Amino acid sequence: MTQPYDPQNIFAKILRGEIPAHTVYEDEHTLAFMDVMPQGDGHTLVIPKAPSRGLLDADPAVLGRLFATVQKVAAAAKAAFQADGLVIYQYNEPAGGQTVFHLHVHIVPRFEGVPLRRHAGGMANGELLAAHAKKIRAALSG
Amino acid sequence: MTQPYDPQNIFAKILRGEIPAHTVYEDEHTLAFMDVMPQGDGHTLVIPKAPSRGLLDADPAVLGRLFATVQKVAAAAKAAFQADGLVIYQYNEPAGGQTVFHLHVHIVPRFEGVPLRRHAGGMANGELLAAHAKKIRAALSG
Repeated sequence: MTQPYDPQNIFAKILRGEIPAHTVYEDEHTLAFMDVMPQGDGHTLVIPKAPSRGLLDADPAVLGRLFATVQKVAAAAKAAFQADGLVIYQYNEPAGGQTVFHLHVHIVPRFEGVPLRRHAGGMANGELLAAHAKKIRAALSG
Repeated sequence: MTQPYDPQNIFAKILRGEIPAHTVYEDEHTLAFMDVMPQGDGHTLVIPKAPSRGLLDADPAVLGRLFATVQKVAAAAKAAFQADGLVIYQYNEPAGGQTVFHLHVHIVPRFEGVPLRRHAGGMANGELLAAHAKKIRAALSG
């Protein structure tokens, strides 16, 4: 059984503007911002504005718009950091590694010979994240 | 620079029926089948029938249909194996862990306390994969 959506999760608070985020992209249906515990430089999250706990309880139309944004932001993140590759992942439920219960997709630029840092490890420096968000925004508008 | 699509990749051969796969779902635009080197029981791949090397060179409309199938098959895999969670991932380019160069999405059921096996580890037993595919097909039609 999937648990109900909890509107007090941290991404819902970001969507309501109650807490800040380093935003890289926003449209009517989706928002992209820097992961504050990045597994690598340029680690970005994309979320739908519509509430869903995970993949399984999302409207398929929402998924389509979500992954269109994932594609757009992933291309920008890869270009901004001149990455060699990209990992896209999406976790569901605690056993699946999920720690925030609003559907989100991770975009992690990858570089030859550079291992990923662990998921939900340390908090990154805010100024560094702001600089990284700026680089990705520049690539999106370029 | 993304390299061009190579129609001799193994998933293109599966789509053409040149090599077999343990299929769990097929529609006009997508195909789902068991990963032959599973990281856990029920590890399934979903691919679009349209050729693209990875996420970045796919038509956004293709992505929408792809993730609609991912959602459907993920729900069935979770139910079939009574999994506690799900990991969805998608690798791009060798630096991103990609080993077959036709866009594909991994669906890996997760269980409390059971670690994932490594990506592209050993080949699974064919009879076991056939049995797992049958379980997921039953959940899809149930």
